Amino acid sequence: MIRLKTIFFVHPLKSKPIIILNFKTYREATGEGALTLARVAERVRDEQGVNIMVAVQHTDIYRIASSVELPVLAQHVDAREPGSWTGHVSAEAVKASGAAGSLVNHSERRLTLADIGSCISALRGLGLLSVLCTDTPETSAGGAALSPDMLAVEPPELIGTGISVSKAKPEVVTKTVEVVKKINSGVIILCGAGISVAEDVSRAIELGTDGVLLASAYVKAKDPYGLLTSMAKAALGAFKG
Amino acid sequence: MIRLKTIFFVHPLKSKPIIILNFKTYREATGEGALTLARVAERVRDEQGVNIMVAVQHTDIYRIASSVELPVLAQHVDAREPGSWTGHVSAEAVKASGAAGSLVNHSERRLTLADIGSCISALRGLGLLSVLCTDTPETSAGGAALSPDMLAVEPPELIGTGISVSKAKPEVVTKTVEVVKKINSGVIILCGAGISVAEDVSRAIELGTDGVLLASAYVKAKDPYGLLTSMAKAALGAFKG
Amino acid sequence: MIRLKTIFFVHPLKSKPIIILNFKTYREATGEGALTLARVAERVRDEQGVNIMVAVQHTDIYRIASSVELPVLAQHVDAREPGSWTGHVSAEAVKASGAAGSLVNHSERRLTLADIGSCISALRGLGLLSVLCTDTPETSAGGAALSPDMLAVEPPELIGTGISVSKAKPEVVTKTVEVVKKINSGVIILCGAGISVAEDVSRAIELGTDGVLLASAYVKAKDPYGLLTSMAKAALGAFKG
Amino acid sequence: MIRLKTIFFVHPLKSKPIIILNFKTYREATGEGALTLARVAERVRDEQGVNIMVAVQHTDIYRIASSVELPVLAQHVDAREPGSWTGHVSAEAVKASGAAGSLVNHSERRLTLADIGSCISALRGLGLLSVLCTDTPETSAGGAALSPDMLAVEPPELIGTGISVSKAKPEVVTKTVEVVKKINSGVIILCGAGISVAEDVSRAIELGTDGVLLASAYVKAKDPYGLLTSMAKAALGAFKG
Repeated sequence: MIRLKTIFFVHPLKSKPIIILNFKTYREATGEGALTLARVAERVRDEQGVNIMVAVQHTDIYRIASSVELPVLAQHVDAREPGSWTGHVSAEAVKASGAAGSLVNHSERRLTLADIGSCISALRGLGLLSVLCTDTPETSAGGAALSPDMLAVEPPELIGTGISVSKAKPEVVTKTVEVVKKINSGVIILCGAGISVAEDVSRAIELGTDGVLLASAYVKAKDPYGLLTSMAKAALGAFKG
Repeated sequence: MIRLKTIFFVHPLKSKPIIILNFKTYREATGEGALTLARVAERVRDEQGVNIMVAVQHTDIYRIASSVELPVLAQHVDAREPGSWTGHVSAEAVKASGAAGSLVNHSERRLTLADIGSCISALRGLGLLSVLCTDTPETSAGGAALSPDMLAVEPPELIGTGISVSKAKPEVVTKTVEVVKKINSGVIILCGAGISVAEDVSRAIELGTDGVLLASAYVKAKDPYGLLTSMAKAALGAFKG
Repeated sequence: MIRLKTIFFVHPLKSKPIIILNFKTYREATGEGALTLARVAERVRDEQGVNIMVAVQHTDIYRIASSVELPVLAQHVDAREPGSWTGHVSAEAVKASGAAGSLVNHSERRLTLADIGSCISALRGLGLLSVLCTDTPETSAGGAALSPDMLAVEPPELIGTGISVSKAKPEVVTKTVEVVKKINSGVIILCGAGISVAEDVSRAIELGTDGVLLASAYVKAKDPYGLLTSMAKAALGAFKG
Repeated sequence: MIRLKTIFFVHPLKSKPIIILNFKTYREATGEGALTLARVAERVRDEQGVNIMVAVQHTDIYRIASSVELPVLAQHVDAREPGSWTGHVSAEAVKASGAAGSLVNHSERRLTLADIGSCISALRGLGLLSVLCTDTPETSAGGAALSPDMLAVEPPELIGTGISVSKAKPEVVTKTVEVVKKINSGVIILCGAGISVAEDVSRAIELGTDGVLLASAYVKAKDPYGLLTSMAKAALGAFKG
């Protein structure tokens, strides 16, 4: 039913910058709205040649993954094997519905250290991507030791503010890049929180990351296509690979 | 995309017994497996004329609700409005994916009293069914005051054991029926935990309920069609409406 | 070590209004500061003859209960029997340290419906008072069915604002009084949130409650003795018993 | 009130092995029982000259810290500053009641990665010891990056079994020692789970740790003094410092 898709349609990770669009539970990004926003992202990805992924609600994974040639991420998985866990979401279930991976430990859905370890390990075992979210250089260092595929540092106090981490707290980004590379050089590093305009993206990459994670700026944009296109161009301009 | 469906295709609630099948996060009841089990349930419903609903994983709601003419329930909703709640599941989202309602406060996904109040209210506001799960006559009385559409009492220590509440703890069922009717006579009462064979269903109805909630017995049955058919017949035989 | 104390030193509950002072985790109400504030409360209780109780941090129960002739409440107990529950607080433990009861389900420490049932039952079994906190008339009705000794309704959006529930949302109070009395007439009803001055207390009692629950207004008062004395007088003036 | 105590009465950490006794919420280790067990531990510490600490319930910290010359640890602190957090336990509160530090993230009280970071940082800022509990070498590596004073690895499946980690899973201990030393050589490493007899302690130290964390074996021992004395001797015999 779900067309098998090359997760990285355009090019392998690390060779191009990465933009992850988190749809959260915004009304505009639910059901049909989510599908529309994912199609816009697919178009920009195809036109600009950057890596773009969408992190959608569990209830929308199947619908979007069945219709759009873009890596679809879950926003969360529970550290639970399939079984007697009513109301939970296993890594197996998100895979069965077509997801290519999952965010782990987003600031709006924190997990215990033990569960982060279990989730990353379960995702890896199923061939799914893990994108671990952290809040400080210290917890980023801790998280890097668990070998997620990607790590996105986001100071929670900036999330949703429109004040970007790359401008307001560049030292959080550079320090995170430094400690993560030291502990585990294979981890792809993103940053997020307040990413609103193209310049926030290029600055994030200049600080040493491979890309960004953003949400409301895209979902609530008057012109999502225009915004994402400008961000993709800025990312490519700043990226050295 | 989702065909509008009469929630109670065959007949209104209360005029016929109700069987809710909880798919939990069983591997057999994920993705394609969930679809197969839902189709079997649809067939038995059509043949026997009882109310049957399936409570499926969030990731499977859209797929099943798009393909099967059966009321599909979510297993859980978070007490969250749409918004900045990464990794959560709002009542709006389950509605947008085609669900007819949701379990609330299952023993494997307990909620705070305040959140139970919010969830029941949010579901009602969207025209969705709420099925509140409780563990004792006391919490059933408390729950009934919140006016869910249905209430399912399930002693947690019997869940998954194959020892049915209707045999092992009939007094929990009769006491629940008594206190719930006293506090809120409009609530439909079910019982669950250990429901495994047809006799458990007829006994549950003889104790004063309108039906049952079951999970592993159906999902892991060698012959789900045969089992559910026998349960539907037993329910109809015992039901006085 | 702990002097056995008549919980209601001055007079039985229900014959006099009740003021519960919640110390939360305010720095001013920790350790020595908590002891000082409890002694002031004891003095006002002795002088004015109202029922006053203090709800203190777990770490301060023993120190205060050993030194002050006032009913000391815990702010929370976990729904856990004694056993392998590192970092939890059982009803047995708060009793062993001298507490006379506990708040249950405060808006800053919500519990599941099942755990509320267990906590109230455990407290009752040990001869300890339970003060159930709720947020709406609906959840108050639900809570009353669980038979706590007292129920304190507090709209969370007013907590800590200085805008009292008795002024801003009198209908929440009167509706709560109505539904709780209907479901369980033995429950003592309090209200809280924003209680700041004497008039808030008299108004709360005029709306049908037996008293109030307050926190920051007392803990952070320039003159706690003066404030509490004025509140006690207002309570007595309005109380009809 | 609380006598100021040299946290390490006998000798600095690292120069002698460490035994941490976790009282959990066992009935035998509550109130007066906790005091008795702490006095036995104090006596063994004085006689044998090992570092012994007791991790007690919040309600017992003040009573024990006021009476016994032994470092008293809390079993848990919440990642909360003093303030409007009814029912929570701040690092300030455990310090005010006489604790010398706290366990963090015990397997029976897991914390999010972000909260672990906050708790360790808050404890350090107050001059209190942090003992981070972890479950695998991977999460131990992650935890070590957060610079706790001590780290105790405990495979949860062995806790309370009487089958000691040092016998049943020595590779978990040696791997943890290896990765923790690599990431942060200043962290003192303990192990726990199933530690029951003196030999489990010597073996733990031979595997490269500085000591052990144990609970039921001590609390429920027929002869706690005899058991702890034998463990202290075994620890000293195996310890190279």
